[in-house]
Amino acid sequence: MGSGRGAALSEAEITAAVAAETEWMVDVLQRLVSAPTVLGAEEAGQVVMEQALRDVGLAPRDVWLDADALRADPGSSPFSWDVSAKRNVVATWEAGADGGRSLILNGHVDVVPPAASELWASPPFEPRRDGDWLYGRGAGDMKAGLVAIAGAVRGLRSLGVAPCANVEVQSVVEEECTGNGALQCLLSGPAADACVLAEPHPDHITTSQVGVLWAHVDVVGRPAHAAVASASGFNAIDAASAISLALRELETEMNAVKPPPFHQFAHPINLNPGVIQGGDWASTVAARCTVSYRLAMYPGQSPSQIAARVEAAVAAAAAANPFLAENPPRVRYDGFRCEGFTLAPDEPVAVTLADTYRRVVGTEAPLSATTATTDARHFVRRGIPAVCFGPLAEQIHGIDERVSIASMERAAQVLAVFVRDWCGLVSD
Amino acid sequence: MGSGRGAALSEAEITAAVAAETEWMVDVLQRLVSAPTVLGAEEAGQVVMEQALRDVGLAPRDVWLDADALRADPGSSPFSWDVSAKRNVVATWEAGADGGRSLILNGHVDVVPPAASELWASPPFEPRRDGDWLYGRGAGDMKAGLVAIAGAVRGLRSLGVAPCANVEVQSVVEEECTGNGALQCLLSGPAADACVLAEPHPDHITTSQVGVLWAHVDVVGRPAHAAVASASGFNAIDAASAISLALRELETEMNAVKPPPFHQFAHPINLNPGVIQGGDWASTVAARCTVSYRLAMYPGQSPSQIAARVEAAVAAAAAANPFLAENPPRVRYDGFRCEGFTLAPDEPVAVTLADTYRRVVGTEAPLSATTATTDARHFVRRGIPAVCFGPLAEQIHGIDERVSIASMERAAQVLAVFVRDWCGLVSD
Repeated sequence: MGSGRGAALSEAEITAAVAAETEWMVDVLQRLVSAPTVLGAEEAGQVVMEQALRDVGLAPRDVWLDADALRADPGSSPFSWDVSAKRNVVATWEAGADGGRSLILNGHVDVVPPAASELWASPPFEPRRDGDWLYGRGAGDMKAGLVAIAGAVRGLRSLGVAPCANVEVQSVVEEECTGNGALQCLLSGPAADACVLAEPHPDHITTSQVGVLWAHVDVVGRPAHAAVASASGFNAIDAASAISLALRELETEMNAVKPPPFHQFAHPINLNPGVIQGGDWASTVAARCTVSYRLAMYPGQSPSQIAARVEAAVAAAAAANPFLAENPPRVRYDGFRCEGFTLAPDEPVAVTLADTYRRVVGTEAPLSATTATTDARHFVRRGIPAVCFGPLAEQIHGIDERVSIASMERAAQVLAVFVRDWCGLVSD
Repeated sequence: MGSGRGAALSEAEITAAVAAETEWMVDVLQRLVSAPTVLGAEEAGQVVMEQALRDVGLAPRDVWLDADALRADPGSSPFSWDVSAKRNVVATWEAGADGGRSLILNGHVDVVPPAASELWASPPFEPRRDGDWLYGRGAGDMKAGLVAIAGAVRGLRSLGVAPCANVEVQSVVEEECTGNGALQCLLSGPAADACVLAEPHPDHITTSQVGVLWAHVDVVGRPAHAAVASASGFNAIDAASAISLALRELETEMNAVKPPPFHQFAHPINLNPGVIQGGDWASTVAARCTVSYRLAMYPGQSPSQIAARVEAAVAAAAAANPFLAENPPRVRYDGFRCEGFTLAPDEPVAVTLADTYRRVVGTEAPLSATTATTDARHFVRRGIPAVCFGPLAEQIHGIDERVSIASMERAAQVLAVFVRDWCGLVSD
């Protein structure tokens, strides 16, 4: 552990130093939210994060995505798009002494699309402040978390201290679709003794998550003039509905027996037909329909197992229909194909962070599970215990997503004290 | 009726003169099929038709679509797109004498999209000849019909004759979505004693057709992270399936009692969910889903009546669901909203054309009905009896659409003799 003046910093000194950075954090957050960092457009956000890390006093580096290296790794998820112009932005807060435990602080800069811009009270990529809330797509998931990481380090550095082992800050891409950004950091960069991802999990420490599979089902029909639809056509849109019903049965099966810690959820395994596109003319029987599904799985279930069950369900539905039996739908994988995990309850990073939280916030932060995936799995897979903790957000992936500014400050304070508790600090 | 040398032309003289134009017709058809005249891209086809009409010896004129004039006419269908750069191309074959009956020969240059290009044996907009068949999107519906009209007039003109009343040739746009192209010709141009539309109805004369309504149903959901789909989300894609089922019940009702002449069809009223689009991310509960439906109606039923039944069916389905009851789907009309019709069986244009057909082809061409709409309704609505007759096509709106070259020649021959029989001919 650390020694010298740094180690003696109190919670109050640290939290005050971080609080002094709140105005800066809000400014960075607003600039980040203004960057519409959906898939393929992440770079505008990385430019903001690069500057923010410089403002923290670190020297940011680029970690470019390497498609071949990613595809060669069994922990990657499949992707059909070009990643050659995508970078993670990382920076090392160099240790000022030996003897501490190293740490990765990770967040993602990419966001999901707005779902329906016209349903938002204000444009999703124009940050809007209303009291403690800052609205915008990605404000909570997880730009405020990224900013809290930067604010924590900036606050600590303002106290003239350094950690007793390297603290690696990572702003990654593609958390929302593959996790390949975080994976690239691990392929290219240093390991650490633990990782905290500042996902919007505000009052608990997330130590367990599901796996996720994205499966795209392509249904082909027999197009014809709508005038003879019933006699000559086979409608791929209608057929896609039948496939969805079959997959709903698989979802029901998967929720029937819920292993711990997922027994606490009424419905831990969610199937989501998230995107549908079919047909090309109202008066033509639809020749094609593609539905993109997201399906969760429990830790211990492999993506390949679940993919096989998806394919079996699709095949059984197709077999029940003469046309589909002859023209079976295709299941494609593009995006998430990843396993879940559950950390042991005595995992030091979780125990230490829970302790930090108790001392800073004054309440308990129980260890918890999430029915979503996060990049934490990559770290765990490589032997780096990883937990999620961050600001309070609402409506992530929804309409009028928002994050609490106070919770962002609080998360930054907890993270800063945690750096002291985990890594140790020394005077710089 | 006409007089002089022209009137004495035999079927054999006329059909031989038209047959001499077949090579020219095939060339024009191939150039037309090469023009991908889907909605918004019709102009490339009109350029071909303009030249073809010049080749026929006529002086083509432009009839520009006038959005305000169209919208003011109760026979128009609603449209949300810009039509200001769209033209019909028309030409008048001037009468050489008085006393005949005038005629409009009408065809549309627009085509529906390819449904699924990758399912075609060859690219849909590259005409491919295989024996008597010419393949391509729109080859049958109805570029070969347009060409047959031009070939008929060219063949007759090669014999040095003129009609005894004006023959108006029309190459129109937007038959496949609104019919507003043909309507504009009627708003801007001359009436006539009859109209023949060279739609692909090869061995019968079509004197009855259904009406068609395009209804677009916009469903709004409650987006959420897929991880909490069942607890917090409401999926618009799933809801759209439920709406489709309700509309299928309306379709079933409408097919239960089939007025003549539609009693001959097993299933005259076809509902078609032709296009679907919903959601924007696999891991986000779909916020929106829009389905574009095509629904037929019997002659005598008004589009407003049917629209009201569609809205009632959608509303009833919505009322059964708490979320949709609060957030009712919206029904929009954009495209076809038109009535059907049935001509009297003794309508002179039908009787005369049937007689012409019998003498040229040697078999009977019964009067028939179609479960589709065509631009014929516009003429009938304005008191111009209109029938459909044209080349033999297969797979219209389908994959590997094709037209018989021999049938195109035959249709041109029938049309040419019909001009003699209907208008009368005189030496030019």
